[in-house]
Amino acid sequence: MTSPTEPRRAAIVGVGLIGGSIGMGLRRAGWHVTGSDRRDEVAKRAEALGALDAVGLDPGAALTVVATPVAAIPATALEALRRGTGAVTDVAGVKASVVGAVRNPRFVGGHPMAGSEADGIEGADADLFAGAVWVLTPTADTDPDAYATVHGAVKDLGADVVTMDPERHDAMVAVVSHVPHLTAAALMTIAASHAADEQGPLLRLAAGGFRDMTRISAGRPDIWPDVCADNAEAITTVLDELMAELARLRAAVAGDRRGDILDALERALAARLALPAKGTRRAAEVVEVRIPVLNRPGAMLEVAALATDLGINLEAIETADATEYDEGLIVTVVDAGAAPRFREALAAKGYRAIVREIG
Amino acid sequence: MTSPTEPRRAAIVGVGLIGGSIGMGLRRAGWHVTGSDRRDEVAKRAEALGALDAVGLDPGAALTVVATPVAAIPATALEALRRGTGAVTDVAGVKASVVGAVRNPRFVGGHPMAGSEADGIEGADADLFAGAVWVLTPTADTDPDAYATVHGAVKDLGADVVTMDPERHDAMVAVVSHVPHLTAAALMTIAASHAADEQGPLLRLAAGGFRDMTRISAGRPDIWPDVCADNAEAITTVLDELMAELARLRAAVAGDRRGDILDALERALAARLALPAKGTRRAAEVVEVRIPVLNRPGAMLEVAALATDLGINLEAIETADATEYDEGLIVTVVDAGAAPRFREALAAKGYRAIVREIG
Repeated sequence: MTSPTEPRRAAIVGVGLIGGSIGMGLRRAGWHVTGSDRRDEVAKRAEALGALDAVGLDPGAALTVVATPVAAIPATALEALRRGTGAVTDVAGVKASVVGAVRNPRFVGGHPMAGSEADGIEGADADLFAGAVWVLTPTADTDPDAYATVHGAVKDLGADVVTMDPERHDAMVAVVSHVPHLTAAALMTIAASHAADEQGPLLRLAAGGFRDMTRISAGRPDIWPDVCADNAEAITTVLDELMAELARLRAAVAGDRRGDILDALERALAARLALPAKGTRRAAEVVEVRIPVLNRPGAMLEVAALATDLGINLEAIETADATEYDEGLIVTVVDAGAAPRFREALAAKGYRAIVREIG
Repeated sequence: MTSPTEPRRAAIVGVGLIGGSIGMGLRRAGWHVTGSDRRDEVAKRAEALGALDAVGLDPGAALTVVATPVAAIPATALEALRRGTGAVTDVAGVKASVVGAVRNPRFVGGHPMAGSEADGIEGADADLFAGAVWVLTPTADTDPDAYATVHGAVKDLGADVVTMDPERHDAMVAVVSHVPHLTAAALMTIAASHAADEQGPLLRLAAGGFRDMTRISAGRPDIWPDVCADNAEAITTVLDELMAELARLRAAVAGDRRGDILDALERALAARLALPAKGTRRAAEVVEVRIPVLNRPGAMLEVAALATDLGINLEAIETADATEYDEGLIVTVVDAGAAPRFREALAAKGYRAIVREIG
């Protein structure tokens, strides 16, 4: 578990909107950041804008972030793993194909669930990820030190880590992102074809609800062929579910089954109201939850996944060399209010955790 | 064309969010407004909040607005037509069934395309309709005086009038409102079922796009069984179109047909960018366009529909008793910039219009 890398030194490959924003955020948090880009002038611009300390790739970096277009990620990540001994992560919106192609204990797949209308290094912003969800997809083979390094960097960017396995991630983003995107495009296409028939006034009738529903169809189209290819199975499955649900609604409308229509809309309303609110997390008092791990391989990732399942945000997670325990210790930091629930769930899995106030 | 009613006196049946907002807006524009509600305490509250001058229904009102739930509209409108000699309009989101059931020259179907998260008279607001589109659905039998009265009141509320026939309205709202609403509910239902399977973290992944797309599913479910029943044919037709478009996208994803995916998303992007922006209409200089009508029945409604087709906003439209013309005169007020285009289109239909500066 020793590492010849320098802690808090990062290298970023690809400094567009996402890579550039990561550079700015890490530098603000005290990291030393180097970086490169397929186009040299972009790397130089990133340095000029404060996203990089220097152009180039630091061979001693504790963390390399691959923020290239998705097709280039596996080869770029493998090269970074060969070049150094630090952790490597990526930012692609699809995970199983990337993680499967790289397959290395020091590679932790990542997906920041944040974006911007802006594009390229000129839109980069140190606050882009503040309060956003950032999915990490460790596997049973993931090296705990590599995971802790990636987790720490993501927390330094102000994001909330959610851990899940790569396949589950891909199924979920098909539900909450890819299929909604394709559906927005389908609605817009149908409206446009009716508008063309009617020569105009239809789209003047488009009130706020329609604008809300089709807003995401104004995003960049060119990323979608790759996304659809990489996540085809989950997307087609969820599209089938959506078409089946629409067919059920159609049958209820055609049959004037008012009770079924009302039930469907009431269920949707209840689910919508239950959507977790964004940006309402209070700046809570935090406590340490210290977990002796007693020779259990994969314990750190099990602990991280458990927190995710409970909806508990891990402000930090790290392994500690603890003289008082034979096998090691995982130290996490969580909301004081969530600590009892976390400790109980850990106990159910056989971990005896200790809650400690900080300071 | 003479009428024993008092101009600028209105009666409103049903003073919830919409009826109450109409009362507030008309009173601010100088109308005298009476009104009633199925529940007396609501009518009294409307008076207390300034939506009504008095509780009750003015028999001499030039305009009665029926703002009850849709199922009660035909009977309420017929009663208002029996009670007085003024114009009667409604605010239902579906028009062919209502207009067909009432079928009277003094009834002009209406649909204000505005709403609010708020509900009931407590949410009423004189500005609710400012800049909104308000569809009117006159027919060949509509009395021009009744149309002019309704049009004038809608303009006094700050809304833009768009005219179309009732069937066309219903097809259009199926496209821009009803089917998007059902689709939002379907997406939310699918996400909720996946979230239940996954016990939690899925919905934390729901970023802004998903929130935008499902926002309308947080509206009141109880109005939808009636809406779906009244507009079943258009809704099922458009749902079929949507399912066909989703099936096309699914086939492109399953077949990795990248060109087709890109084409579909680029077409949707172009259509989305072409959506008319809201609230950007400048406070333009206006002119009168005066149109001698030379014994053409239905001329006023033809003129209104022509303006709609051209995307020209009629700030006002009325008939004038003109000594200098044998058969009458329609006076409209439009943006100075749109007047030449309007005159040309009128000429193509055989109207010789005169543009006059105002003041």
